[in-house]
Amino acid sequence: MVTAIVLLNAARGRVNDVAETLAGLDGVSEVYSVGGRYDLVVIIRVASNEALAELVTERLQALDGIEETETLIAFRAQSRHDLESMFSIGL
Amino acid sequence: MVTAIVLLNAARGRVNDVAETLAGLDGVSEVYSVGGRYDLVVIIRVASNEALAELVTERLQALDGIEETETLIAFRAQSRHDLESMFSIGL
Amino acid sequence: MVTAIVLLNAARGRVNDVAETLAGLDGVSEVYSVGGRYDLVVIIRVASNEALAELVTERLQALDGIEETETLIAFRAQSRHDLESMFSIGL
Amino acid sequence: MVTAIVLLNAARGRVNDVAETLAGLDGVSEVYSVGGRYDLVVIIRVASNEALAELVTERLQALDGIEETETLIAFRAQSRHDLESMFSIGL
Amino acid sequence: MVTAIVLLNAARGRVNDVAETLAGLDGVSEVYSVGGRYDLVVIIRVASNEALAELVTERLQALDGIEETETLIAFRAQSRHDLESMFSIGL
Amino acid sequence: MVTAIVLLNAARGRVNDVAETLAGLDGVSEVYSVGGRYDLVVIIRVASNEALAELVTERLQALDGIEETETLIAFRAQSRHDLESMFSIGL
Amino acid sequence: MVTAIVLLNAARGRVNDVAETLAGLDGVSEVYSVGGRYDLVVIIRVASNEALAELVTERLQALDGIEETETLIAFRAQSRHDLESMFSIGL
Amino acid sequence: MVTAIVLLNAARGRVNDVAETLAGLDGVSEVYSVGGRYDLVVIIRVASNEALAELVTERLQALDGIEETETLIAFRAQSRHDLESMFSIGL
Amino acid sequence: MVTAIVLLNAARGRVNDVAETLAGLDGVSEVYSVGGRYDLVVIIRVASNEALAELVTERLQALDGIEETETLIAFRAQSRHDLESMFSIGL
Amino acid sequence: MVTAIVLLNAARGRVNDVAETLAGLDGVSEVYSVGGRYDLVVIIRVASNEALAELVTERLQALDGIEETETLIAFRAQSRHDLESMFSIGL
Repeated sequence: MVTAIVLLNAARGRVNDVAETLAGLDGVSEVYSVGGRYDLVVIIRVASNEALAELVTERLQALDGIEETETLIAFRAQSRHDLESMFSIGL
Repeated sequence: MVTAIVLLNAARGRVNDVAETLAGLDGVSEVYSVGGRYDLVVIIRVASNEALAELVTERLQALDGIEETETLIAFRAQSRHDLESMFSIGL
Repeated sequence: MVTAIVLLNAARGRVNDVAETLAGLDGVSEVYSVGGRYDLVVIIRVASNEALAELVTERLQALDGIEETETLIAFRAQSRHDLESMFSIGL
Repeated sequence: MVTAIVLLNAARGRVNDVAETLAGLDGVSEVYSVGGRYDLVVIIRVASNEALAELVTERLQALDGIEETETLIAFRAQSRHDLESMFSIGL
Repeated sequence: MVTAIVLLNAARGRVNDVAETLAGLDGVSEVYSVGGRYDLVVIIRVASNEALAELVTERLQALDGIEETETLIAFRAQSRHDLESMFSIGL
Repeated sequence: MVTAIVLLNAARGRVNDVAETLAGLDGVSEVYSVGGRYDLVVIIRVASNEALAELVTERLQALDGIEETETLIAFRAQSRHDLESMFSIGL
Repeated sequence: MVTAIVLLNAARGRVNDVAETLAGLDGVSEVYSVGGRYDLVVIIRVASNEALAELVTERLQALDGIEETETLIAFRAQSRHDLESMFSIGL
Repeated sequence: MVTAIVLLNAARGRVNDVAETLAGLDGVSEVYSVGGRYDLVVIIRVASNEALAELVTERLQALDGIEETETLIAFRAQSRHDLESMFSIGL
Repeated sequence: MVTAIVLLNAARGRVNDVAETLAGLDGVSEVYSVGGRYDLVVIIRVASNEALAELVTERLQALDGIEETETLIAFRAQSRHDLESMFSIGL
Repeated sequence: MVTAIVLLNAARGRVNDVAETLAGLDGVSEVYSVGGRYDLVVIIRVASNEALAELVTERLQALDGIEETETLIAFRAQSRHDLESMFSIGL
């Protein structure tokens, strides 16, 4: 299981429809509208680095209305407690 | 339920013990070591803005070994699918 | 009651009409032309995070003449004195 | 009446006591803990530019626990509605 | 008397004609072509904050060929001596 | 005559005494406390590039309480009119 | 032998075809899709500074779909051991 | 096989000994002194994300003389050709 | 004699022809393609600040294919050895 | 012949003595005090990349009083006219 957090800015006035489209993509686990320098935070959970590459570069970045993305790839889930809760919901 | 994503840099050589301590705090749901400009991404889920304030300013930022934090407060979970999964694990 | 401070840049030559339009939106409490890196500071006071999301992403960011926004969501009003004055004007 | 919005970062672990001290200064109208790149937003309302200079450079910036400040001086309150509400609370 | 220093970038190849136009505006006291990150530094001296707002947002920022402006509003002239010395060297 | 505009940040709580010291240096024409990213704007008028070098690198930057300086050297005063208007308003 | 590492951002939705084209250029040794602020990291190994100039300014930067490049020229390979270990693991 | 490119700044005057130490770490494939904003580029090739986490957070970032690191995790090697060409030139 | 160093970015794919044109301008002494954040470094040696202003704002910045320039004006040549070598080539 | 341009910031109040020391180093051709974001621009002309590595990482960056350096390595001298003048002074 590979987790990545994508920080994303949408074109002006497009935040909500971009968020809705993102939420429908396979591999996208959560989408949040946030305050601060970014418009959206997208949490991705996929099976492999290759699946991450495919989701980010072929589907996510190709969406209309997205202006900038910065992908933070997790190389370790530091928390045991979180791994457990991930099991319990079948992720 | 209030969600926040905290982007965090730790003092050099302290990433892992900071991450472990963070993972043990009430309200901290997930902690990831990530590549890129930040060392850690912390996902917080608490009951209210007041609980978020207390967690971020009194407990998280007071930890030794933390150098910079940027808190992205979610004001909307755009994805229905994610809200459902949050219910199913009793968050 | 949720308060947010929005730092905003307008398109060149559009500061004043953007400011006027913003001042007429429900939930917008104050609009200031300011010196420094930003053109306008907008103070928002609404009933909930959901109302903030609706105001920022659907109405404010959709306005013509706005180029960049950074929304600072307040998670605590540190000052008692300020909470009192907010009561006294019925916010 | 001169209004200024101060964006402020506190030393790690000092946000809350800095905020409390700020809230007690004459001329400080509101203090918010915020998400994003800044720790606190302080709203100042004083009688003149000279009073602003005195408050910012002699009292606010001299406080222990403050690391960086950026003062946005308002040169116009764009909103009529806001001026009215300011009258009504006797500011 | 309110003083402001405006740091300004012009469109490529437009520095000189923008500078000339700026120099002709009421309230603009000095215009310098400068090295470094900015193209021009404009020094404004007007009677009030309201006059500054009018000059910056309605006339200066509306000029064709201007790309970015950052207005530094002076809230105190620290030096009396400097006004005197300007007389004595016949500026 | 060489003109330079120095953008300057002082150590916390030192803005006013730094400004006073600066105002007493030969060649320093004006010193302003400003809002925005910088604490002080210093306007220098000296006879030659060599005098500017001496003032900036040997006296100004050696002052205690100064943290960062950015010197914008004017290579052209675009406006004749401005020197005249300074006479006419008695500056 | 001159080595350079190019940090590169592609136009939205173009990362994969840009990467493929880059991988076909003589002198380009490796191309990686990466997380973080950049889209691609390109490793170049050519015979001389002149060959590097020709590759970067005439062929690489001329490709459609590339938006920004930052070329890090290696002036020393600090490690002998690394060349050896590349043999030993069959890369 | 996981590849990561680490952009790294060393303490002043420490570049060469840091580079030497890095070159001796298991998993570090290449170390280059580079021009530009970074001092060193380190190329890492390890067996898994977990091995990468261990190398970056426990060994690399713990080295004395390292000031800042930014880890770019490759999620796809776009070019097959490149591995081949490395054989053919005898690297 | 006034020296200035211009840091310059060209439009994508235009570095070489911009460099050639720059090299033909009177007052331009050297033009280098460089690695790092900038595309070109231009070294200017002219007779006076006024000649520098004319070269930078009227001829250099007006060239097609130039996107950003930052002019570093030298106010002192610190090195005696360099001044001597400048004499010896009749600059 | 390898040319590099080093952009350098010195510790406060150290610009002149750092510049003098730099001017005495073999391989350093010119040293300028400059306006703008950097304190000094150093022009280096050495025989090879290896000589550049030795000068920058072992001698220049080891000097006391230097805080930050950014080395721009020239990979092409675009100007024929400049190459000629370099010959004529025997560089």
